[in-house]
Amino acid sequence: MRLQHIIESQQFSVPNLMELFARTRTMEKVVQRGGTRDYEDKVMATLFYRPSTRTRFSFESAMYRLGGKVLSTESAKAFSSAVEGEQLEDTIRIIATYCDVIVLRHNEEGGAKRAAAVSPVPIINAGDGAGGQHPTQALLDLYTIYDECKALDGLSVALIGALDTGRTARSLAYLLSKFDRVKLYFLAPPEMQIKPDIVEHLRERNVWHHLASNPEEILPHVDVVYQTRIDRERLQQKDVKPTQYNIDAKMLETMKSDAIILHPLPRSVEIDPAVDRDPRAAYFRQARNGLFVRMALLTMLFDTE
Amino acid sequence: MRLQHIIESQQFSVPNLMELFARTRTMEKVVQRGGTRDYEDKVMATLFYRPSTRTRFSFESAMYRLGGKVLSTESAKAFSSAVEGEQLEDTIRIIATYCDVIVLRHNEEGGAKRAAAVSPVPIINAGDGAGGQHPTQALLDLYTIYDECKALDGLSVALIGALDTGRTARSLAYLLSKFDRVKLYFLAPPEMQIKPDIVEHLRERNVWHHLASNPEEILPHVDVVYQTRIDRERLQQKDVKPTQYNIDAKMLETMKSDAIILHPLPRSVEIDPAVDRDPRAAYFRQARNGLFVRMALLTMLFDTE
Amino acid sequence: MRLQHIIESQQFSVPNLMELFARTRTMEKVVQRGGTRDYEDKVMATLFYRPSTRTRFSFESAMYRLGGKVLSTESAKAFSSAVEGEQLEDTIRIIATYCDVIVLRHNEEGGAKRAAAVSPVPIINAGDGAGGQHPTQALLDLYTIYDECKALDGLSVALIGALDTGRTARSLAYLLSKFDRVKLYFLAPPEMQIKPDIVEHLRERNVWHHLASNPEEILPHVDVVYQTRIDRERLQQKDVKPTQYNIDAKMLETMKSDAIILHPLPRSVEIDPAVDRDPRAAYFRQARNGLFVRMALLTMLFDTE
Repeated sequence: MRLQHIIESQQFSVPNLMELFARTRTMEKVVQRGGTRDYEDKVMATLFYRPSTRTRFSFESAMYRLGGKVLSTESAKAFSSAVEGEQLEDTIRIIATYCDVIVLRHNEEGGAKRAAAVSPVPIINAGDGAGGQHPTQALLDLYTIYDECKALDGLSVALIGALDTGRTARSLAYLLSKFDRVKLYFLAPPEMQIKPDIVEHLRERNVWHHLASNPEEILPHVDVVYQTRIDRERLQQKDVKPTQYNIDAKMLETMKSDAIILHPLPRSVEIDPAVDRDPRAAYFRQARNGLFVRMALLTMLFDTE
Repeated sequence: MRLQHIIESQQFSVPNLMELFARTRTMEKVVQRGGTRDYEDKVMATLFYRPSTRTRFSFESAMYRLGGKVLSTESAKAFSSAVEGEQLEDTIRIIATYCDVIVLRHNEEGGAKRAAAVSPVPIINAGDGAGGQHPTQALLDLYTIYDECKALDGLSVALIGALDTGRTARSLAYLLSKFDRVKLYFLAPPEMQIKPDIVEHLRERNVWHHLASNPEEILPHVDVVYQTRIDRERLQQKDVKPTQYNIDAKMLETMKSDAIILHPLPRSVEIDPAVDRDPRAAYFRQARNGLFVRMALLTMLFDTE
Repeated sequence: MRLQHIIESQQFSVPNLMELFARTRTMEKVVQRGGTRDYEDKVMATLFYRPSTRTRFSFESAMYRLGGKVLSTESAKAFSSAVEGEQLEDTIRIIATYCDVIVLRHNEEGGAKRAAAVSPVPIINAGDGAGGQHPTQALLDLYTIYDECKALDGLSVALIGALDTGRTARSLAYLLSKFDRVKLYFLAPPEMQIKPDIVEHLRERNVWHHLASNPEEILPHVDVVYQTRIDRERLQQKDVKPTQYNIDAKMLETMKSDAIILHPLPRSVEIDPAVDRDPRAAYFRQARNGLFVRMALLTMLFDTE
């Protein structure tokens, strides 16, 4: 399959995902061998309207390990302010004349779709707005579960945190719903629970799911804990004990011995650094997978047959 | 011809321009073939005291397509502020120890000349101050006319916009004056007309020219429309109808069927997006030519015989 | 010798320094030949919490001349501000998954040590805090003396400026103390003299040293003048004549004919530009040596046998 653009996680069918994961495995080996030069004639532009050094570096490193080159901008605000009324569409058409793929982090929901509509080169959405998509994060999260648990069918997964605003948790729930016999637990204070659109989607798909607010009851039963941030200020407003949703050594003791803990990073206080030494702490391996998944996605955009 | 520095468009004779255009054609083919590695040992530094992501990317992409490497700075303000009294000359002498060519956008008129006076490596002026030069833009504008119209001699060209402050229009008028039987129309509100120094130069050279304020009378007769911005606030101060100098579908109808429309980009409202679909809209092809012209200029700086 | 990290100048023994200088010589030849591709599978990340374009470019150019690739950030402030409570340690662990070496300029003293404690890839300290270390600057200063004077044993060196706060002068004094029969002169207003810890260290090592405040008496007798900045405001507070510690044509006349003048650059007014034309002015050669020394250090980190 050749991809044209990468805009949202919904565009990936299960066979697409399996091809992506196979390529990702290959890329891990490519990096171990010191990278490839197969794509040395390719130029990638990273166009970030909001800075995100981690995501930018992950894409740029992926391009370098493939042998390619990178046009980089830490903060593309200069674009929008330089000329009153300048349109994203014009910027994309101009930047596309300089490169073979554009990685775009835009500040408005739908920005990536607008870019893709006019771009002669592939667009990769690296996040568009607070309510928008960040599909490569969702794909690396899913790949990490697949890689660590050796399967996706039949898994029990707990998603914890401010699930109402948590873009990554929402996307992961959506992607997991494509697999058989998955059980999803949503753990959050009632006011921050996963939104009805996701619950509705799971019902339509007949995906087992359960909304709860007490991690201690749920964590002993799951294969995967997907932890995200809860803004401390929001917790204080809601009279929730700030540490109730954090993972620490005590919480770890109650978990299955072969469970894994994921986090999109960066973390604040929601995972105690003491947890890092436990082999179940998979979040730094997850960060590294971002490199391999992004390499695999780039090859799917570049390869013409 | 080997160039030492690229400081101002005046330094290019007609034979220089013809060599540049021949190399530019070659570079277009080089890019179609996936670039070259002939210059892989070269390092270019982009030193921009004012951010301009489009211009920076265009140069950096040119260097990458030639196989070279790039030291990049989005905004070199840190240089001037770091040490009270630090001189541009010192900065250039230090940066020159790290690279083979410096692309400089300085905030003061004459900055590029000062840099060239001390630099052991070639300096390319990528704009120096509001009243200064931006020769690579002028050269890509001229090349686009040459490439689209298959000639420069005998063309009728209309330049529209705030011509008094418009650096690109001034430089293009200067370069066009080198060619035979060119006719130049300057279209602007009287208060924003092209300045007397250019008019004087055209008189000395016996170049046909005409200053006017009504585009509708002129556009039906020209081969090239070079549109630039007029700041809307300036128009309002002058009681000019804001749309009078804009190009829209109606204006397009009056133009020759083989005319072309250029714009240095980014645009604001002065060209209606509906015009983009017309084959006469050449401004995105013009942006792409920036890549080829800059590649050609870099090879003219690097090639020693 | 294989280095694991480069954190402080104290970690280099005399044999280490001699290996570094031999490699540095080799690198000078490598650059003359147009660089190497031996390290083309390596990726370096420059993580600068405070911008320093010169230092960043020097490292990045070193990596390019070795054939490698660069992930670059002009100002990594976005890291610390993005998530309340995010730790440098987490940032390093994530960035390390994308690259083979991290060049870190951190804003807190000890930042580089903290990074090295958790990083699976080598850390190079490019300055950590006002009171911290900047070992590659100290090493290139020392190499320049070695390269220009053909020896380190037996030299007379004057260090001038605000020596109490001058990180580079302090480090150089420390490194020079490792060599035989070195004589060190510290020239500063009494209130800005070198701090007692360095004086104590020199006493323990039996290194000849002399603290003075009048450059005119000392400069005629030394082989090396290491000039650093004195903040003009500080001078005015202390009633010192602002030019007393500056080097100008008159001061130059009193110096030995084979002496050299160094400065870590950028300079303000403390060396008159008229001095630049004198062959004893070695500070731009010193800046260029930064490239070769950093290339050599990178190879010492990468080479496994």
